[in-house]
Amino acid sequence: MPETLIKVDLTQSAYENDSVHNRWHPDIPMVATVKPGDDFIIETYDWTGGFIKNNDSADDVRDIDLSIVHFLSGPIGVEGAEPGDLLVVDLLDIGAKPDSQWGFNGFFSKQNGGGFLTEHFPLAQKSIWDFEGLFTKSRHVPGVRFPGLIHPGLIGCLPDPRLLATWNERETGLIATNPTRVPGLANPPFGPTAHMGRLAGEARDKAAAEGARTVPPREHGGNCDIKDLSRGSKIYFPVYVPGAGLSMGDLHFSQGDGEITFCGAIEMAGWVHLKVGLIKDGMAKYGIKNPIFKPSPITPRYDDYLIFEGISVDEAGAQHYLDVTVAYRQACLNAIEYLKKFGYSGAQAYSILGTAPVQGHVSGVVDVPNACATLWLPTGIFEFDINPGADGPTRYLDGSVEMPLSPDK
Amino acid sequence: MPETLIKVDLTQSAYENDSVHNRWHPDIPMVATVKPGDDFIIETYDWTGGFIKNNDSADDVRDIDLSIVHFLSGPIGVEGAEPGDLLVVDLLDIGAKPDSQWGFNGFFSKQNGGGFLTEHFPLAQKSIWDFEGLFTKSRHVPGVRFPGLIHPGLIGCLPDPRLLATWNERETGLIATNPTRVPGLANPPFGPTAHMGRLAGEARDKAAAEGARTVPPREHGGNCDIKDLSRGSKIYFPVYVPGAGLSMGDLHFSQGDGEITFCGAIEMAGWVHLKVGLIKDGMAKYGIKNPIFKPSPITPRYDDYLIFEGISVDEAGAQHYLDVTVAYRQACLNAIEYLKKFGYSGAQAYSILGTAPVQGHVSGVVDVPNACATLWLPTGIFEFDINPGADGPTRYLDGSVEMPLSPDK
Amino acid sequence: MPETLIKVDLTQSAYENDSVHNRWHPDIPMVATVKPGDDFIIETYDWTGGFIKNNDSADDVRDIDLSIVHFLSGPIGVEGAEPGDLLVVDLLDIGAKPDSQWGFNGFFSKQNGGGFLTEHFPLAQKSIWDFEGLFTKSRHVPGVRFPGLIHPGLIGCLPDPRLLATWNERETGLIATNPTRVPGLANPPFGPTAHMGRLAGEARDKAAAEGARTVPPREHGGNCDIKDLSRGSKIYFPVYVPGAGLSMGDLHFSQGDGEITFCGAIEMAGWVHLKVGLIKDGMAKYGIKNPIFKPSPITPRYDDYLIFEGISVDEAGAQHYLDVTVAYRQACLNAIEYLKKFGYSGAQAYSILGTAPVQGHVSGVVDVPNACATLWLPTGIFEFDINPGADGPTRYLDGSVEMPLSPDK
Amino acid sequence: MPETLIKVDLTQSAYENDSVHNRWHPDIPMVATVKPGDDFIIETYDWTGGFIKNNDSADDVRDIDLSIVHFLSGPIGVEGAEPGDLLVVDLLDIGAKPDSQWGFNGFFSKQNGGGFLTEHFPLAQKSIWDFEGLFTKSRHVPGVRFPGLIHPGLIGCLPDPRLLATWNERETGLIATNPTRVPGLANPPFGPTAHMGRLAGEARDKAAAEGARTVPPREHGGNCDIKDLSRGSKIYFPVYVPGAGLSMGDLHFSQGDGEITFCGAIEMAGWVHLKVGLIKDGMAKYGIKNPIFKPSPITPRYDDYLIFEGISVDEAGAQHYLDVTVAYRQACLNAIEYLKKFGYSGAQAYSILGTAPVQGHVSGVVDVPNACATLWLPTGIFEFDINPGADGPTRYLDGSVEMPLSPDK
Repeated sequence: MPETLIKVDLTQSAYENDSVHNRWHPDIPMVATVKPGDDFIIETYDWTGGFIKNNDSADDVRDIDLSIVHFLSGPIGVEGAEPGDLLVVDLLDIGAKPDSQWGFNGFFSKQNGGGFLTEHFPLAQKSIWDFEGLFTKSRHVPGVRFPGLIHPGLIGCLPDPRLLATWNERETGLIATNPTRVPGLANPPFGPTAHMGRLAGEARDKAAAEGARTVPPREHGGNCDIKDLSRGSKIYFPVYVPGAGLSMGDLHFSQGDGEITFCGAIEMAGWVHLKVGLIKDGMAKYGIKNPIFKPSPITPRYDDYLIFEGISVDEAGAQHYLDVTVAYRQACLNAIEYLKKFGYSGAQAYSILGTAPVQGHVSGVVDVPNACATLWLPTGIFEFDINPGADGPTRYLDGSVEMPLSPDK
Repeated sequence: MPETLIKVDLTQSAYENDSVHNRWHPDIPMVATVKPGDDFIIETYDWTGGFIKNNDSADDVRDIDLSIVHFLSGPIGVEGAEPGDLLVVDLLDIGAKPDSQWGFNGFFSKQNGGGFLTEHFPLAQKSIWDFEGLFTKSRHVPGVRFPGLIHPGLIGCLPDPRLLATWNERETGLIATNPTRVPGLANPPFGPTAHMGRLAGEARDKAAAEGARTVPPREHGGNCDIKDLSRGSKIYFPVYVPGAGLSMGDLHFSQGDGEITFCGAIEMAGWVHLKVGLIKDGMAKYGIKNPIFKPSPITPRYDDYLIFEGISVDEAGAQHYLDVTVAYRQACLNAIEYLKKFGYSGAQAYSILGTAPVQGHVSGVVDVPNACATLWLPTGIFEFDINPGADGPTRYLDGSVEMPLSPDK
Repeated sequence: MPETLIKVDLTQSAYENDSVHNRWHPDIPMVATVKPGDDFIIETYDWTGGFIKNNDSADDVRDIDLSIVHFLSGPIGVEGAEPGDLLVVDLLDIGAKPDSQWGFNGFFSKQNGGGFLTEHFPLAQKSIWDFEGLFTKSRHVPGVRFPGLIHPGLIGCLPDPRLLATWNERETGLIATNPTRVPGLANPPFGPTAHMGRLAGEARDKAAAEGARTVPPREHGGNCDIKDLSRGSKIYFPVYVPGAGLSMGDLHFSQGDGEITFCGAIEMAGWVHLKVGLIKDGMAKYGIKNPIFKPSPITPRYDDYLIFEGISVDEAGAQHYLDVTVAYRQACLNAIEYLKKFGYSGAQAYSILGTAPVQGHVSGVVDVPNACATLWLPTGIFEFDINPGADGPTRYLDGSVEMPLSPDK
Repeated sequence: MPETLIKVDLTQSAYENDSVHNRWHPDIPMVATVKPGDDFIIETYDWTGGFIKNNDSADDVRDIDLSIVHFLSGPIGVEGAEPGDLLVVDLLDIGAKPDSQWGFNGFFSKQNGGGFLTEHFPLAQKSIWDFEGLFTKSRHVPGVRFPGLIHPGLIGCLPDPRLLATWNERETGLIATNPTRVPGLANPPFGPTAHMGRLAGEARDKAAAEGARTVPPREHGGNCDIKDLSRGSKIYFPVYVPGAGLSMGDLHFSQGDGEITFCGAIEMAGWVHLKVGLIKDGMAKYGIKNPIFKPSPITPRYDDYLIFEGISVDEAGAQHYLDVTVAYRQACLNAIEYLKKFGYSGAQAYSILGTAPVQGHVSGVVDVPNACATLWLPTGIFEFDINPGADGPTRYLDGSVEMPLSPDK
């Protein structure tokens, strides 16, 4: 077996593990160094460092301090990596920790993070998903079962100081346009809950105060939450600092396009088996700004879908201009209404869209003023027939099972 | 063979064909009536009614009066269809007219329509794509060849008066926010170039003055430009008027997600073989607002892709909030930069993204403030290897072939 | 549109069309000549030249004189083709004749041809399959509907005299081991019903007497009945005579692996749009004896199958040694027994296996003494659920529809 | 984590593990009992019990006593299972033992087992395949790398006495037709090397003397070596004895259709996570004689293949009658000749066909006298381009790497 370079103990606080960090900063010290061609294993906490529990209450989802996320394992140094190179990462395999064969999905309260449909689901809710080998199912969302499209929600290399400054500048600039908005437009650096890995003392405090939050995807990749970065895929990352500094975390057993539920996909603690290589000066050679990747040859496949359309007219009937975000929201809402006809609660339907490998396509984006987005729901994940028919829908669920909900305090 | 209910003669002006119309209005008379269970054939013009020619000049793309589009064949009445029903449409097959085995793709001038990347490609350009049975290739874009994912860009049922009023109200309201913008935010009703089918006299003039333009997708479907509504798919359309009134046109031999080039996909004249059925009261039974559909079991398939990421920070570095439109634009621009390294001009690369079956995914849409979109480029459409490698890209094209361009007058 | 080099008139006898032949012989004159890079269209009769009719009697299947088959269109000469080359054939598209949107499937009487399961279905039976665009269904086999995997059952180049002599020698040698067997072990040359194209007079008679029958697949390809040589595929044929001499026919709208019903797949008259190229000296360069090919990128796809196993112990319990033919027969019989539980007659089930795109795999062929073959039945072709479940099968069919049967005279 | 019901220690002789057996007999005692609905883990030895080593000599392949195979883990009793039921087995996941991340493939000497192409490769050879997460590659077969299609080569339930008698009778009958053949036509019961699990004393000796060998697939499934029984699949097994008695082993990391190399696929020690259920009286309800199954939704997929044809004329030119076994052998030999043009030795090419997920199809089986079989080689497993082209093949391999060979002693 390949060497495990970073281990995590799920019974220990992530803050006590110095191979972990939760901010992006060029000064975070490498915790291990590998050579191009090496393969190795990295263990990770779930993105919240174990805050969310396997139980039937959404209190933890309601009460979490979101400034603590995401707990990342790394950074890993790669010998010979220099700024301008492409770091080639093969995700050879990914899995849940053997002693933690479950994951969680939820919606944050609108007061604490929100989500894509937070106006419709403003309160904290949670569902627990148990793993059965390649498959998952939930005691809170009956009638669905599907194989995992396992992937890291977050992976990327350390920024250099200039890139870090750009990030902080443009995001704090956005916040400044509406600083009291709930939920906030973005998350500024926040020292008190920063975990800067092995950085210590004054250097640590300075970096903590300016370290970029891990929430958004950025030029380096980071928290892209792309479900297709799954085990078996190959990613080409821009390198900004000597040694690259690869970190990762936020593992998902499965997720739908958009990760619309925000808290989040099916979130889990686990391990990643990966291999690294380099393309010297690859950023210039290939004109690369953001990472590019090739998908896995071994993923769950579906041939049959039910596809929902949405256009950029919002729920209130207001017209937006070629706005795919609005259009995709409408497609999601349309799918939820449909699923409710079979007996799901709206929350359960929302949870399915956040966890199952639904596809979200930018279908049309030039026909002014309406963008058109489509939500592809794989019919094979359901244990009953969800296709439309002349006789109308059958209610397969009796409503006796519901997702835990915790009202705002 | 099934009956051909509507014929079009490509040598005749579309305005002279009274089974054709180019506005949406409930008063447009049915041109034929069918029963549930019937299958039949409908011929259509290309969306411009033949204005764009198979030649090596983009003058026609520059000079077209866009108020004439789209020329639709219909409406077809369906016996027994009533408001609130779902009209089930099987697209049994679709093809180009035997005497017109070619299509066009282009970019409108920013002064006359624009497109998704109009800031980068502000001038009229055109490429011609020849069909070879199931496949297409272009004398203006060498190095790619792929089978068609043939579909109607535009298909849907007539609106009722209330829905029509809603459309016009919200779109003219948007225009009013910036009435002099070029290109315009939306297109208001415009009588002079309206073709109202068999409607005549005063009734015609009244309807022409209020008929909704065909450009945007709306609640009824319409100009969705969803590449996956391909031959073999099954669509469930909301019905608003007695008889449904199904119209279609804007056939595409192939298109990428987003139809980003706007003028358009690979546009063609052709025919649609379809079959209709009804789900009585289906809108309420299934909670349907927009059409839903099931994809075709027989489409071109690719297992290998090169995937480009984009985030909602625009080309100028400005930060946008969870804006998938901006993110998808960045993914497209990233793909274009990559393809240029192999010898393509930017215009050729843009054309590939508009015509080939690229996928555009809403990958992440909750990680404030950045949305993440991905552009999936199928590697199998290229006649050479476009994968990244340690040696850097090989220039397979020598730049001797370019797409016609016509400067603004 | 490309040129149609060979036309067939379905109202005319195939014997009267001199661009058609039904034997393999090097002396058959080319009926047209093309250049490498050309694309063109070839029309073909169905394999029986129109003998089998679209009606509800199997008398024609019982009474056909099988020495007349297969009526092939060609041979086409290719400029520059020489023995030892590979002729590269792109099947750009294939379709049924517009005035003949149907096909037939049947079982020959054991007295006249037989079939793979002739011991179980010894009498002539027939089903008619109507085409609906990309799809087909049968009034004789309810409950299934599927898109076509259209392909030529028979395509290949003319043999040279030495190859022809080899064929006749080895096949007559086999016949000699049991000359009175019914059905026969093979088919020897037979002059009286030979159609030698444009060959006339004495030369015609000599060639007719020695022309190889078209029934078996051989080194040159020929009657391979490989369902995957479908439209969109690319085939590399060995060339034996100057000009290659490409002929084709026996078009199938769809077929299962094995073409087990023998009369045959879904047989149809139609057209092939193809393109030719050459690899000079390709046979030696690539070590080619039989044709090789690449499958089509656009075929009907299924992700869900029900798979039946068979081993090389025959229906009577007799043990055979690593005999895949016996094993596949058992898998087919197992599938038929299964389908009967849902209400199909055995004949209908047999017809489904012969026409639908079932896969037949050589799964294990070394575990003495039993070969293991598997029959993959796509579940998506059925209009009801054929999966096993705890409650046992539901009879979806009431037996009121049956396939026509004509007892031996 | 689910309970591990059977553990194996790779440093211990399989004969010393009483949860293991290597013969089929109804009297072998259950080693554990589960309930319908339970999921659990079973560890297994490789099929030889560890005889074949991870080294660069084929001596072990040459010298193995094949009467010791296969070492199976089980039998597992299922509460409530009765003869006539179907045992539903979900293969939830399968993997290699963490301390044994490699597998072997080889050819037996013709003097000791042989293989599908033993006339062409009569001597013992071996290749070692290392696992890298989901992928495998071999130091003895350069230029290929592919994800595993992991499956148990052997799984099934205990026979009842009548079925056991049938097996022994028909196989010894076959042997009697040519008792001195090398390799043998089949393998009779053989007590000396039998491992009868927990059966002891006289009962053990009696059962050992009559226990059926595990080599062939039979009515109960058993050693089917079907590559598609992969992790994620669902199998329906006939039950013959109370409690069912499910045993399994012979795990493969990957295999091509036919397992043509016989020693064997990529053979490994590992574990199976499975779940069981029952369909009461399912054999009669569904007309089941052999197992049926549904494939996994998550397997390696390939869209591009190079396909080789073979007909039932053998290497010596002899004509066989509709013999798929002969036809598939020709297709395999054709593929090997092709691969040799790129620099592979014949042995390496043979090994690729035995290990990679090649498909073997029964393409035509009625066109007397020739069966037609096809061998589908996925092009994506190669690290270079193996497609034919106008310029002929490039030799990517220089012959410096070869597979170990051990001449007969």
